[in-house]
Amino acid sequence: MALNYPNKKNTMTKTINKANLGMDLESMINESNEYYRVNDIAIIHKKPTPVQIVKVDYPMRSKAVITEAYYKIPSTTDYNGIYKGKYIDFEAKENHNKTSFPLANIHPHQVKHLLSIKKHGGIGFLIVAWSLYNEYYLLPLDILEKYWNDAYENDSRKSIPYKEFKDNCHLIKESYIPRLNFLKVVDELYFNDEKK
Amino acid sequence: MALNYPNKKNTMTKTINKANLGMDLESMINESNEYYRVNDIAIIHKKPTPVQIVKVDYPMRSKAVITEAYYKIPSTTDYNGIYKGKYIDFEAKENHNKTSFPLANIHPHQVKHLLSIKKHGGIGFLIVAWSLYNEYYLLPLDILEKYWNDAYENDSRKSIPYKEFKDNCHLIKESYIPRLNFLKVVDELYFNDEKK
Repeated sequence: MALNYPNKKNTMTKTINKANLGMDLESMINESNEYYRVNDIAIIHKKPTPVQIVKVDYPMRSKAVITEAYYKIPSTTDYNGIYKGKYIDFEAKENHNKTSFPLANIHPHQVKHLLSIKKHGGIGFLIVAWSLYNEYYLLPLDILEKYWNDAYENDSRKSIPYKEFKDNCHLIKESYIPRLNFLKVVDELYFNDEKK
Repeated sequence: MALNYPNKKNTMTKTINKANLGMDLESMINESNEYYRVNDIAIIHKKPTPVQIVKVDYPMRSKAVITEAYYKIPSTTDYNGIYKGKYIDFEAKENHNKTSFPLANIHPHQVKHLLSIKKHGGIGFLIVAWSLYNEYYLLPLDILEKYWNDAYENDSRKSIPYKEFKDNCHLIKESYIPRLNFLKVVDELYFNDEKK
């Protein structure tokens, strides 16, 4: 997997400036997963972007070139793997809004997928970046499910307010390494006596 | 996920002729996984083919077209998911040879990945189709590991003989539905008292 590692100079600049400023959520999670893998903490990978390949050229003496392809809607979440013997599965979303996280950010089959995972004994959640506040939250599946059902079954609001994140979701601390220590929050939520 | 379902006519023809003749291993596994999901037996998906996207066009009023992309070497296996609360992870390979399965079919980091999964408490294996014999085997990780180490550490043979499959691997039965009931073999191997 090609990870976008900052070179040493960039890393230092980033440390001196504000941590992670300008680094997107996906890169932060990829770097954290790399850290978890290298240190044998968890094996979590990002799934490749699903692409519908239509046309491939095979120029002589060089590798195949895909010349026509289209992005497909993902049927599952972006990340999955194993942590402490448990199956773990999550989606990561950046939110640029001020006061709420629109549910339109998530595909219905992704919610369905996460609910299936939970039913089968796995751990499923969302990581939501509030880019304006430079804050990262673990959004537990039960809260997502509540808002989702309200929105689409009771035709209620189609977003989760920032206050819900502040009050009932779980802030993920940024650090130098790992960038986004989301497994610390997973530990508290899913590996304590009080299971969620 | 776009599954290649045969239409009803094709299905009947296939049943009358030799089962699954002409159906490739990937389609058979995808259909089986669909069956497992619909019946809430397991949640297993094929990962998208990893592609390095180089150029994307955005024609007005139509969706983005990827106009230059390349196949990437996969960093993990093709399939993963959850079964009976356990993380499950495997790679599927078609073998057109008569007497042996060349280890060159598998990328070194895929073997490494499967070994990590095992270490973390997950279930990992290979499904190998012997296309000449119309036979499908579950190849347990410990056998793969033995031949892999012999090949690359002791510079021994770089393939697994057919006899090893016959004698020590596990035949997966074909059926109408699911096409390839590999979870039945997983049950016997990983959910009995005698764990492998």
